[in-house]
Amino acid sequence: MTVPESEIAALVRAVVPDRPLDREQIADRYARARWSAIAEPGDADAGRLLAAVGAMAALELLSAGAPALADAAGGSFTEAVERWSPRLRQVDTPLHLRQAARFGARLLVPGDAEWPTGLDDLGMHAPSALWVRGDATLLGRLERSIAIVGARAATGYGEHVTVEVASGLVDRGFAIVSGAAFGIDGAAHRAALASGGSTVAFLAGGVDRFYPSAHETLLTRIVDRGAVVSEVPCGTAPTKWRFLQRNRLIAAASSATVVVEAGWRSGSLNTAGHAAQLGRPLGAVPGPVTSSASAGCHRLIREYDAVCVTTAQEMAELVDPTGAPTLLTGDPSPERTRVLDALTRTGRDLSRIAAISGMSLDAVRAELGMLELDGLATEGPSGWRRGSG
Amino acid sequence: MTVPESEIAALVRAVVPDRPLDREQIADRYARARWSAIAEPGDADAGRLLAAVGAMAALELLSAGAPALADAAGGSFTEAVERWSPRLRQVDTPLHLRQAARFGARLLVPGDAEWPTGLDDLGMHAPSALWVRGDATLLGRLERSIAIVGARAATGYGEHVTVEVASGLVDRGFAIVSGAAFGIDGAAHRAALASGGSTVAFLAGGVDRFYPSAHETLLTRIVDRGAVVSEVPCGTAPTKWRFLQRNRLIAAASSATVVVEAGWRSGSLNTAGHAAQLGRPLGAVPGPVTSSASAGCHRLIREYDAVCVTTAQEMAELVDPTGAPTLLTGDPSPERTRVLDALTRTGRDLSRIAAISGMSLDAVRAELGMLELDGLATEGPSGWRRGSG
Repeated sequence: MTVPESEIAALVRAVVPDRPLDREQIADRYARARWSAIAEPGDADAGRLLAAVGAMAALELLSAGAPALADAAGGSFTEAVERWSPRLRQVDTPLHLRQAARFGARLLVPGDAEWPTGLDDLGMHAPSALWVRGDATLLGRLERSIAIVGARAATGYGEHVTVEVASGLVDRGFAIVSGAAFGIDGAAHRAALASGGSTVAFLAGGVDRFYPSAHETLLTRIVDRGAVVSEVPCGTAPTKWRFLQRNRLIAAASSATVVVEAGWRSGSLNTAGHAAQLGRPLGAVPGPVTSSASAGCHRLIREYDAVCVTTAQEMAELVDPTGAPTLLTGDPSPERTRVLDALTRTGRDLSRIAAISGMSLDAVRAELGMLELDGLATEGPSGWRRGSG
Repeated sequence: MTVPESEIAALVRAVVPDRPLDREQIADRYARARWSAIAEPGDADAGRLLAAVGAMAALELLSAGAPALADAAGGSFTEAVERWSPRLRQVDTPLHLRQAARFGARLLVPGDAEWPTGLDDLGMHAPSALWVRGDATLLGRLERSIAIVGARAATGYGEHVTVEVASGLVDRGFAIVSGAAFGIDGAAHRAALASGGSTVAFLAGGVDRFYPSAHETLLTRIVDRGAVVSEVPCGTAPTKWRFLQRNRLIAAASSATVVVEAGWRSGSLNTAGHAAQLGRPLGAVPGPVTSSASAGCHRLIREYDAVCVTTAQEMAELVDPTGAPTLLTGDPSPERTRVLDALTRTGRDLSRIAAISGMSLDAVRAELGMLELDGLATEGPSGWRRGSG
């Protein structure tokens, strides 16, 4: 399928409306748009090839076959060419671009100011391009963002906690990233919007077809006040594989991932696994051990070293760690406890307090002095007693 | 206060009824009984002194004063002598022994078969003796025991979980150790008794005065079918200090400690702190983040590396660890997921499946073969389809 260069330029400019692009940039974007349909999300061969020769040359070499690719990019691409070739012929990139333009979607490529820097950590598994509806500039500011994900079959408890922590994180200046699914995801986006915060939804299918369709209204609101993103072009259906790969984008784009509720084999554990693999801080919200909707969270804490997080503040600390915890035994000193044990409200003399507390006179005297300063002991006619004045 | 040797022998034999004791053993036990009243629980100076010269010599040296102790045991005991001297004169050990005998209590000393081996890990902080009512032999078998402790102000959730896990642990052959307090402690003892298991209660005061008094019936049942233990003699009141030190005995005597519910500053965190200091496995049961009764448990998991435990089995694994956890991403392979995505219930030919899944023909063929073996795919006249037969 040969498309005239002028038409390509018009198609690409329609999805990159506010930026001057030279011929080469246009050709690169067009090629990346093609690759976003030729290779399945997360295809490491495609990532390796594009990194080695660029998107345009990669397309040309693909047309020339596996040996050409092996010569140019080093390594075997025989299997990959078998995967990619049927799609190379079928993929209708002009259609994808027209559909994107119709929906006001923008095409982002690595190097754009809006490109989420976190995606670079995906290496060869990074997407070749992103399709974005809404405020694409949000994507360039995800260093301060937290992914809140969880079970579709959330409980009232899970949704309540999600709303609380999402608003609390918005108040602390975090964007909320999620996957627009039923349950926890939806509650997270809604709470972010309700608190006037930024929120970004990553979809497994094209941004022209909202999934789940019952979240049409929610996703429309996210487009209006946040951003909806996908690495597959318009018209692409979500599949199980694409959901799993979408999860890697959620984990990579945000600065930490928190799972609020998850069954024992929930898909959110996959997002958590990606976050852990990428070295991103991972938190899980505990819940009743009698609730199967919290079993996956407990599993993450137990087996995968997820941090147990119970408040927005603790989630924020995943990204901005604070000082070391205080000591468990750091409460009153042994001397203080023992002298207080020996004091009454009526009064006892020093030697009696020493005998009762099993401490020396000097130690009791020193401790009583400190207790007096703290208003916890007073000396009177009947000796030392509890309380002040 | 001088007591004839014959009277001492009768007094000591009354609390060690079934074992022949020679003169020296009697004198040692008597001296340890005295020390259990002279030094407050956890007094490291007393531990150091008794380890250096033995309980009898330590008493004689104490009468002779600090310089004598320093000569004999090395190091300064000036402060300690000031603490101990008033008590040396006051402590009425014959009274303690008579009261113990009246309540059928037994006096244990280190080296007895019934002495809990875990207490040895307390080093200089180990008790000089233990006073036990009930089945003292249980104490010698605490290598397979779990301490279940928690908030006095437990919730219905906390008590429910306690009953479940305590019975589950009894079924797995564990003794249940706790502190006989209201709330979680009481529920743990009760569940152990109800399941026909062994249970041991450590008290902060003497074993002749049950605390809390509302647990009189429960503690009486524990004496009948388990054991009630204290390191302070009969007649001794529980104080804040003695509660804290009692907690160290619970942590040291059992092979793991589990906190079921605990407020942010609960006393159970002190038991947990002792367990952690002793290198004992420490577990905490999560709960709703909206429940303040679980805040201390979450704190233990978050800040003190307590293991998140949700079932009796997971608590048992604190003591008997099992194999490594499975991989989060260890579910279906990428190939399997993508081929399954491409299959329908009606059937598609191989090349179509390859195009849809974005995989090579060979890879699809191999995966279909494995799916067929698993009954997940079948070949028919219309190509490959989901399901078997």
